[in-house]
Amino acid sequence: MSKKVITFGEIMLRLAPEGYFRFVQAETYGATFGGGEANVAVSLANYGMDAKFVTKLPKHEIGQAAVNSLRRYGVDTSFIARGGDRVGIYYLEKGASQRPSKVIYDRAGSSIAAASTADFNWDEIFQGVDWFHFTGITPALGDNVTEICLEACKAAKEKGITISCDLNYRNKLWSKEKAKEVMTELCQYVDVCIANEEDASDVFGIKASDTDVTSGKVNHEGYKEVAKKLADQFGFQKVAITLRGSISANDNNWAAMLYVDGEYYFSKSYLMHIVDRVGGGDSFGGGLIYASLNDFAPQDTIEFAVAASCLKHSIEGDFNQVSVDEVLKLAGGDASGRVQR
Amino acid sequence: MSKKVITFGEIMLRLAPEGYFRFVQAETYGATFGGGEANVAVSLANYGMDAKFVTKLPKHEIGQAAVNSLRRYGVDTSFIARGGDRVGIYYLEKGASQRPSKVIYDRAGSSIAAASTADFNWDEIFQGVDWFHFTGITPALGDNVTEICLEACKAAKEKGITISCDLNYRNKLWSKEKAKEVMTELCQYVDVCIANEEDASDVFGIKASDTDVTSGKVNHEGYKEVAKKLADQFGFQKVAITLRGSISANDNNWAAMLYVDGEYYFSKSYLMHIVDRVGGGDSFGGGLIYASLNDFAPQDTIEFAVAASCLKHSIEGDFNQVSVDEVLKLAGGDASGRVQR
Amino acid sequence: MSKKVITFGEIMLRLAPEGYFRFVQAETYGATFGGGEANVAVSLANYGMDAKFVTKLPKHEIGQAAVNSLRRYGVDTSFIARGGDRVGIYYLEKGASQRPSKVIYDRAGSSIAAASTADFNWDEIFQGVDWFHFTGITPALGDNVTEICLEACKAAKEKGITISCDLNYRNKLWSKEKAKEVMTELCQYVDVCIANEEDASDVFGIKASDTDVTSGKVNHEGYKEVAKKLADQFGFQKVAITLRGSISANDNNWAAMLYVDGEYYFSKSYLMHIVDRVGGGDSFGGGLIYASLNDFAPQDTIEFAVAASCLKHSIEGDFNQVSVDEVLKLAGGDASGRVQR
Amino acid sequence: MSKKVITFGEIMLRLAPEGYFRFVQAETYGATFGGGEANVAVSLANYGMDAKFVTKLPKHEIGQAAVNSLRRYGVDTSFIARGGDRVGIYYLEKGASQRPSKVIYDRAGSSIAAASTADFNWDEIFQGVDWFHFTGITPALGDNVTEICLEACKAAKEKGITISCDLNYRNKLWSKEKAKEVMTELCQYVDVCIANEEDASDVFGIKASDTDVTSGKVNHEGYKEVAKKLADQFGFQKVAITLRGSISANDNNWAAMLYVDGEYYFSKSYLMHIVDRVGGGDSFGGGLIYASLNDFAPQDTIEFAVAASCLKHSIEGDFNQVSVDEVLKLAGGDASGRVQR
Amino acid sequence: MSKKVITFGEIMLRLAPEGYFRFVQAETYGATFGGGEANVAVSLANYGMDAKFVTKLPKHEIGQAAVNSLRRYGVDTSFIARGGDRVGIYYLEKGASQRPSKVIYDRAGSSIAAASTADFNWDEIFQGVDWFHFTGITPALGDNVTEICLEACKAAKEKGITISCDLNYRNKLWSKEKAKEVMTELCQYVDVCIANEEDASDVFGIKASDTDVTSGKVNHEGYKEVAKKLADQFGFQKVAITLRGSISANDNNWAAMLYVDGEYYFSKSYLMHIVDRVGGGDSFGGGLIYASLNDFAPQDTIEFAVAASCLKHSIEGDFNQVSVDEVLKLAGGDASGRVQR
Amino acid sequence: MSKKVITFGEIMLRLAPEGYFRFVQAETYGATFGGGEANVAVSLANYGMDAKFVTKLPKHEIGQAAVNSLRRYGVDTSFIARGGDRVGIYYLEKGASQRPSKVIYDRAGSSIAAASTADFNWDEIFQGVDWFHFTGITPALGDNVTEICLEACKAAKEKGITISCDLNYRNKLWSKEKAKEVMTELCQYVDVCIANEEDASDVFGIKASDTDVTSGKVNHEGYKEVAKKLADQFGFQKVAITLRGSISANDNNWAAMLYVDGEYYFSKSYLMHIVDRVGGGDSFGGGLIYASLNDFAPQDTIEFAVAASCLKHSIEGDFNQVSVDEVLKLAGGDASGRVQR
Repeated sequence: MSKKVITFGEIMLRLAPEGYFRFVQAETYGATFGGGEANVAVSLANYGMDAKFVTKLPKHEIGQAAVNSLRRYGVDTSFIARGGDRVGIYYLEKGASQRPSKVIYDRAGSSIAAASTADFNWDEIFQGVDWFHFTGITPALGDNVTEICLEACKAAKEKGITISCDLNYRNKLWSKEKAKEVMTELCQYVDVCIANEEDASDVFGIKASDTDVTSGKVNHEGYKEVAKKLADQFGFQKVAITLRGSISANDNNWAAMLYVDGEYYFSKSYLMHIVDRVGGGDSFGGGLIYASLNDFAPQDTIEFAVAASCLKHSIEGDFNQVSVDEVLKLAGGDASGRVQR
Repeated sequence: MSKKVITFGEIMLRLAPEGYFRFVQAETYGATFGGGEANVAVSLANYGMDAKFVTKLPKHEIGQAAVNSLRRYGVDTSFIARGGDRVGIYYLEKGASQRPSKVIYDRAGSSIAAASTADFNWDEIFQGVDWFHFTGITPALGDNVTEICLEACKAAKEKGITISCDLNYRNKLWSKEKAKEVMTELCQYVDVCIANEEDASDVFGIKASDTDVTSGKVNHEGYKEVAKKLADQFGFQKVAITLRGSISANDNNWAAMLYVDGEYYFSKSYLMHIVDRVGGGDSFGGGLIYASLNDFAPQDTIEFAVAASCLKHSIEGDFNQVSVDEVLKLAGGDASGRVQR
Repeated sequence: MSKKVITFGEIMLRLAPEGYFRFVQAETYGATFGGGEANVAVSLANYGMDAKFVTKLPKHEIGQAAVNSLRRYGVDTSFIARGGDRVGIYYLEKGASQRPSKVIYDRAGSSIAAASTADFNWDEIFQGVDWFHFTGITPALGDNVTEICLEACKAAKEKGITISCDLNYRNKLWSKEKAKEVMTELCQYVDVCIANEEDASDVFGIKASDTDVTSGKVNHEGYKEVAKKLADQFGFQKVAITLRGSISANDNNWAAMLYVDGEYYFSKSYLMHIVDRVGGGDSFGGGLIYASLNDFAPQDTIEFAVAASCLKHSIEGDFNQVSVDEVLKLAGGDASGRVQR
Repeated sequence: MSKKVITFGEIMLRLAPEGYFRFVQAETYGATFGGGEANVAVSLANYGMDAKFVTKLPKHEIGQAAVNSLRRYGVDTSFIARGGDRVGIYYLEKGASQRPSKVIYDRAGSSIAAASTADFNWDEIFQGVDWFHFTGITPALGDNVTEICLEACKAAKEKGITISCDLNYRNKLWSKEKAKEVMTELCQYVDVCIANEEDASDVFGIKASDTDVTSGKVNHEGYKEVAKKLADQFGFQKVAITLRGSISANDNNWAAMLYVDGEYYFSKSYLMHIVDRVGGGDSFGGGLIYASLNDFAPQDTIEFAVAASCLKHSIEGDFNQVSVDEVLKLAGGDASGRVQR
Repeated sequence: MSKKVITFGEIMLRLAPEGYFRFVQAETYGATFGGGEANVAVSLANYGMDAKFVTKLPKHEIGQAAVNSLRRYGVDTSFIARGGDRVGIYYLEKGASQRPSKVIYDRAGSSIAAASTADFNWDEIFQGVDWFHFTGITPALGDNVTEICLEACKAAKEKGITISCDLNYRNKLWSKEKAKEVMTELCQYVDVCIANEEDASDVFGIKASDTDVTSGKVNHEGYKEVAKKLADQFGFQKVAITLRGSISANDNNWAAMLYVDGEYYFSKSYLMHIVDRVGGGDSFGGGLIYASLNDFAPQDTIEFAVAASCLKHSIEGDFNQVSVDEVLKLAGGDASGRVQR
Repeated sequence: MSKKVITFGEIMLRLAPEGYFRFVQAETYGATFGGGEANVAVSLANYGMDAKFVTKLPKHEIGQAAVNSLRRYGVDTSFIARGGDRVGIYYLEKGASQRPSKVIYDRAGSSIAAASTADFNWDEIFQGVDWFHFTGITPALGDNVTEICLEACKAAKEKGITISCDLNYRNKLWSKEKAKEVMTELCQYVDVCIANEEDASDVFGIKASDTDVTSGKVNHEGYKEVAKKLADQFGFQKVAITLRGSISANDNNWAAMLYVDGEYYFSKSYLMHIVDRVGGGDSFGGGLIYASLNDFAPQDTIEFAVAASCLKHSIEGDFNQVSVDEVLKLAGGDASGRVQR
């Protein structure tokens, strides 16, 4: 029987000029949906897990389109509260070469940002659930959402559900001070911590030494240090850190490290030609949760998570549209991209 | 030398599935811009007038794209204030046959809705201006915007500028009671009142007898009555009422009446196959202002305004992309649509 | 609690040149999915019912895309068998004016056409179900599929589930003789019979007198006769006949008649500007089942079914994307297509 | 063995905004090819005839794309001379409702307009040929092209080939005086004359009484008069006149008259919802030539030609993409547009 | 006078999501045509040769569209038999970076797969022909097609026509055992054998030592060995082997070797950024045949074939759209991709 | 107050197949506008300068669309003369990998090529202007345009306006001999000379030793020599030379050198993944003028110009859509392309 996972957060309308057009050139936008925790839910549903995404969305057709985008890929949407005024939006302009991608958020006042604890009955939501996942974006939506998160964490902990959190710092949503305060409280419930090469520093002030994220180079020793500090400070069972080396908007190096039981496991590193970079971190989280729930060994776990997210970078949209077989094939070493007939 | 016109209001991002796709089917949205007063400004610029649109827009690229959409068609954007958080949005689903078009507004919190009187220096804006136009949508954005409107009306009045107002009642923005209160105050400055077949009733409770707007039929005598009451109550020099007979989402009858100096002037009526109905009323306003500023006789005025807006219904987008020559040709009687080589 | 409906049949990949392009002009095809019973399931899911579609589809990604197209709109796909070689295809060229739409089928050898009774456990499938629907297309796929249909009908009858069948004669799939033989056997289990103006004649040789389907006119008395004969011969509780008057590929008249308890109920007639005609009959079936399951009075039932299918003709694709509210609004008399803001 | 037809003239690149977008709105153009005589050749190739199109086109890829557009539909392009500087262009904006379609020509200096008699060896071209067709546009391209036309007509006449000419007056290319002079000379070689409701008047000053082409009405008696005068003056065996009644850019009435052996044959009249009106007259010519070469009776000839061109109005692009069977079906009376499965 | 070449095989409808969309994301497919031998015919027609493609296609419009796709590029389609039920299909999902391209075949039951020897009169087809080409895919379509191939080979051999065969093993169509048996028989008629780095091993069990096709590296010595064995075993005059080094789905190394008269000729190697990889091998075959028929020296032959196929990788669709001049320019050493004005 | 710049030249309609389609494959063209001096004007307007573009364009809608394309991005179009027959065209096929981009010009007879000195009143145009820019393309349009250029240069010189010229040799427009003669006369008025790695040689026969532009390598010493010779011969204050190393159609190295006051300043070099290469040189000119007018130090000037044009290569269309901030960020060293949120 497939494992049950709940993810909780915001799903936004993603408005993106096609190809490499800039915002000021476009008169058509791709209109899809995405958001950290929704992306993780889709990853898991694509791996055959029973994934439910919890949020609040307006009753109107744009809200319904968001629901449909999740149902299409097999995510259970029955716990999505309906009401409120608007679907949050993010505008995405795809970068190329030396020109970076650009994201403009227009998410204030969304249904989930205006939700209250009364919208979610966590006792019911968590029936029979194995894993609960959220990111640092969700509590950043407002004090009311922080409170909902806290309720969810407490309810999950009570039921013995594993809790994972991707720190995912967003400086447009809150200050580092506020983030530190709130995340410190929430992280006491968290078992598995996921972070990218900047989050630990932004949220908790925990830095890898000698790393310049704009240089395309990362310092492995520094990240071991960061992971250990995080685990020591919050009692995380696992800490996973993604390591992105940005050569250009088109080319990135991609790898990660898993820290568990005092050991460090580094994945292979991939040089990726990027189709769509957004959701890359979330697909890593999805891979990590899948591997963990299926009791992969630590090295296999980090290889699965990195291969899954490597593939995501070749896929349009926030959602990672890959199967377990495809991930295993890449994790197993076939990165040649030869035609499959 | 071309006449100078100021219009003031909100310009929104218009997100519309292509063709007849419903919201829940679309994964691409046409992304253009429009809004009552902006549409009037474009009409006038296309007629060769010196039209300036005044609003507030964010500094980011989506705000810039809104500015560009106006500049492209020759509207002067130099008095647009820049700042605030977001561009208002409306989602548009085009109807067909018995299925109506659908509009979902997502405009709360837009830069103009959050603007203050300090954003606009009307003394400077109105230098050398001949005409000022706004609609009932603008004050409905909030008390702050009502106040800006009031300042603008007073400044315009002081300078002897003709003021026109399209009543344009929007029930999602305010109650009929509130609308009546605010519009009653603003209308004392207005010289030319434009309304459709429902506005006078919605805003001021002034009704045409025996008219059912969903039946495709209109009662001419009733509208004469309405126009006279409006003029009497507010001292309008001119009252223009558009008469839409909706046969289906694709087919509408379209005509209008002008009341001036105690006389009623009815236009020809057109049976229109609709390409895009949004902005139809605004294009009527644009035609009316053009004809008025160019001293057309009353019958010629109403024929020009109706022909202009008839053509708008054949054009994609909010903006009416027609020339004076094209309008005059139709108003002059050539409605056969024969190829122009 | 919402009623449960099972529909069973084939879902095909629909390949259609965009707009009015002919097959020989197109280098892009819209690629969506549809099929008689699948279309009914989507209608019902959109009305909030618990609709499950049963079929067999290949395991590969094209099969998965078919599944996803159903999940997206809320249809339960958990009883879809996976296996076999291919997804059936139909090519659709949209007609205009005097040029008819054209359908080319390429469905031989599809997974469902090659399925066996072992693929479906009807006992399990029909747990808690209220209604079972299929069409005359399904048994026409082959003797093996006829056998599956028969098993399904028997199982449904045993559980007291209401069974509806849309006769839907397809001359490319079987002869009139074969159709008569098979449908005569299956119809003994059927409670509600749906047919268009030609089916009864094609399948059972029961004809309406004085009707020429290419003339745009239909003979009401004749259809009363047909319905009565059908009910008398097979013991149907209800017979519903759709009445299409084809003026051109763009313009059709649309109405229907319901025969129940010895009474004839004729719906209003709609003059439709057609966006997409395919699935029109299926959307009628969906409306009829919804109204029946919700105990609408006979006149309300036929008005709902016809209004639902009238709206379908304004919607792209096989699936009817309308809500109960939208159908009720039209059935209630508002056919003016005025913008909904 | 299929009959051989030569058509001679210009094929242009047709640049058209998609859908109903105006020139000033579009940032994409459909890029297809068309031109009076090329359109006739495609019609005939689609009917299974051996049709060759003669012109001159540049050697570069845009010239090659023009050649390919003809080969694709089976037109023999082996006598197309290659050389010169440019492919002529016409920009086409599709009208709707009261807004007319608009054509902007940019054809000066095209390879064919700059061609000389040395480019074409008519003796070789006309080997085994049954019919030669050109239009009044071709000699209007310049005196050099008039000379080529004259050579072709003489060579064809010598070989006993039937010659047809569609008068097709284009006021952007030459004056009425010049047209009259040139066409008077060329028409002495012509056996079959085709004209629309305005051409006879524009080119030869022969008018139908009491007809206003912009009113949507035509006067049958007047056209009989025109045809007779044309035949009498130039000795044409057949005169065919198309009768377009333009109700709007979307809706036209369409019929024609054939005058042969002193008798007048009027076709049925069709009310058409127009998809693309350009090439409508050429498709009439194609139908007329096909029917003539296949010895249809006069009434069948005019019905075939009108049905063929009626169908063209439902098809995107200059080329008429219909088969003999489709034309015969419509000419035979089935105009209902019912789906063909 | 240009050389005449016959190619024989299947042409399929190629359905491909645009850009890098996965099958489960796409709602539009590019709809073009392609297939091993058809691709070679188009290459040759683009080089100015008289290329005829022989196959069987249904009479309906999808079959006609396949014919048109070939005529458009100058391929002679007059020997294509018409009849049967369907056009074979392949679905193509373009890969990127570490994600491979994916092909799903749906070709069973196509007209050519169901054809018989009676459909083709090889005596007539081979009149005046210089070269005959087929691939290992064609006999794999079924025993009936193997028989047709055999007839063709015998007829060609009798007339002294050079025969080339691209081994092209497809494991979805037949087993290695069956392939070996059939190809062994057919290869006795073959003069020129083309293979990629895996075919010789898959079909005849002839392997290059020390080569791992997923590693991006090839072993030149091994391929010399393979070519010699092939030539020795079947008496081929020429053996050409393409050497693809797959770095990722976007980046491949590309080169080839020609073995003739006991000598080995290696081409330059190209690092390619891939636009569309499908048809890469066929374009090599096209180049090889062109060079051979035009008596290029061996080194020039292999350089031409590799340059031709290198360019193909930069072109969308199965067909190689390049001219002799373009190939010669690259083969001559200008690989800089500088703009040609 | 922002600096005023005039640029003078031709703006053409740019017709380009989308993506990597070749001309012979495309049935849709992107339809935008561009041209050397227009591109510079857009760059400057995007940097907030008061940029006016001077040309002549027809009065029709295609001419208007060209005007609108400039207004959209803030270029002042009030000095554009209207009249003449046509908008010049260039067809652009985007290259990939080893396949070069291809440009076909169709610009003869354009309004500006047929303009006369009477169309432009340089005294009025140059009121309050700081900089005048043109390229070698403009005088190449014809002797009449050379004369206009000369008038402009003289008028500018008289008013003390800085004059820049991009040599931009186009061999389709004139011979090297003619270019040398004309440019020698015009260059005596020029203060700032811009050239690419080939122009100096093509126009003036001044060559860099040991450089092969197709090899991807450039010789720095050689360019120092070239710049010095140019400055010495014509008295230029500044000479800027762009250095493009073409690895493939997708990948170029990009750098430049500025020679001023006897010193040579080399920029950083960028390895670019190209989105659209056309307009790359013009964006360099735009950057150089901006930096010069804002008194950047020489090294900062060349870094700004190169960073600006590096970014251009990542942007679709002729126009460089970047802000001063974006250029400064890249020039400052952040070339990692990391997402901007």
